[in-house]
Amino acid sequence: MHSLRFTAETSSDGVVERDFTVGEVPGVLWSPVSGPGRAPLVLMGHGGGTHKKWPAMSGRAHRFVTDCGFHVAVIDAPGHGDRPRTAHDEAEIAALYRARAAGEPEGPVVVRYNAHLAERAVPEWQATLDALQELPEIGPDGPVGYFGLNMATAIGVPLTAADPRIRAAVFGLHWPDALAEAASRITVPVEFMLQWDDEHIPRESGLALFDAFASKEKTLRANAGRHKELPRFEVGSAVRFFARHLGRAVAPAA
Amino acid sequence: MHSLRFTAETSSDGVVERDFTVGEVPGVLWSPVSGPGRAPLVLMGHGGGTHKKWPAMSGRAHRFVTDCGFHVAVIDAPGHGDRPRTAHDEAEIAALYRARAAGEPEGPVVVRYNAHLAERAVPEWQATLDALQELPEIGPDGPVGYFGLNMATAIGVPLTAADPRIRAAVFGLHWPDALAEAASRITVPVEFMLQWDDEHIPRESGLALFDAFASKEKTLRANAGRHKELPRFEVGSAVRFFARHLGRAVAPAA
Repeated sequence: MHSLRFTAETSSDGVVERDFTVGEVPGVLWSPVSGPGRAPLVLMGHGGGTHKKWPAMSGRAHRFVTDCGFHVAVIDAPGHGDRPRTAHDEAEIAALYRARAAGEPEGPVVVRYNAHLAERAVPEWQATLDALQELPEIGPDGPVGYFGLNMATAIGVPLTAADPRIRAAVFGLHWPDALAEAASRITVPVEFMLQWDDEHIPRESGLALFDAFASKEKTLRANAGRHKELPRFEVGSAVRFFARHLGRAVAPAA
Repeated sequence: MHSLRFTAETSSDGVVERDFTVGEVPGVLWSPVSGPGRAPLVLMGHGGGTHKKWPAMSGRAHRFVTDCGFHVAVIDAPGHGDRPRTAHDEAEIAALYRARAAGEPEGPVVVRYNAHLAERAVPEWQATLDALQELPEIGPDGPVGYFGLNMATAIGVPLTAADPRIRAAVFGLHWPDALAEAASRITVPVEFMLQWDDEHIPRESGLALFDAFASKEKTLRANAGRHKELPRFEVGSAVRFFARHLGRAVAPAA
């Protein structure tokens, strides 16, 4: 088992940002500046083609830390951010660009490649969680959530199905094809985001993935708009969802 | 035009409750105890078989007043609460009970009767809004929202389609049959609530009504559970929706 090694630390606006590695995998942990005792942890996955410090990641992390006092960890997915690409990664990315250039649906390539990435990423997330839980400010028994859309849903669904430490999860914006079976083994509370006019993911496909979760408490949040037009207020909904299920109050809205 | 006549006043927990009539129609207006100037108004409709002071109404009204400083008005629908039933009301209610007792679907009776009630209720709501806007604490130009589920969606959809004073609306838990055409004329922001396992309203029917709204900003909130199991946290979502669109901050969560 790899332990966690911090490699850099900065802070701004009451949030401490620490880069870390667990074995070969680089990550970042955002935490409250102060505060005694332990706090819940949200694992956050980034989307395809981006990385652990993409603005959407750091922005959401700051909301979670500031509003709820959570820790938030993001790691680079295989072939993303500071990590090398394999020949297989390069071939799949080239296939995706070919499909786009030809005006063909992205779905078949994305579904297949994301399923491959998930096989590599799930054990990495579990090793990262093992290491994070050795930190005194997180601890071995604290509540853990998972938040990931797009590619991070492809990784997060099998991760959440496999790891009972994850007690609540926010997913969305993905096809059901490779995920419905794992989703049917998930029983923790789920919030699921879908774009009603998604030009890549047919509406019925998104609804089918939401339907597949076995969770007794699950909420679909479908907004008018295209694939990349998820409204910013949905981050606030995720904040309140995790506050409910990981056991924290939400700070006053700005 | 009928003006508004207050008939009783009480207050509790920082909320003033004033009974009123506009012509033959009895209503209740919940308002902040204090506060200078005008505040936005939310028109709230009650469900079939209940009335203006049903606990769900007073509970939601207290949330809106306390969290956002809104005024909230509810009137008794035709044949409900303090209002007399016509022979037609009695016949339709008997038809509903017969369908229930026979284990037949409620939908056909409910859809037909609610459409009839909406024809009577829409002009009553418009007269009530006329009268409420004469109050100095509401005023003729302030933002107005509408919140109504079940029968109150059957009334609220044609009302919102007809009345440009309503700038944002929360609907849900209804069949599309008599409403889709009016929904297609609604362009203000809409939040729509649906129960994923509704035993009365087929899932596809609920989704079809959400789909029918022409609103550029619309959000579907579908929760696992049966018709009457709408989670309580959805009231909080409605609070934030109206705060965004009627222009008020949300007070700190309890």
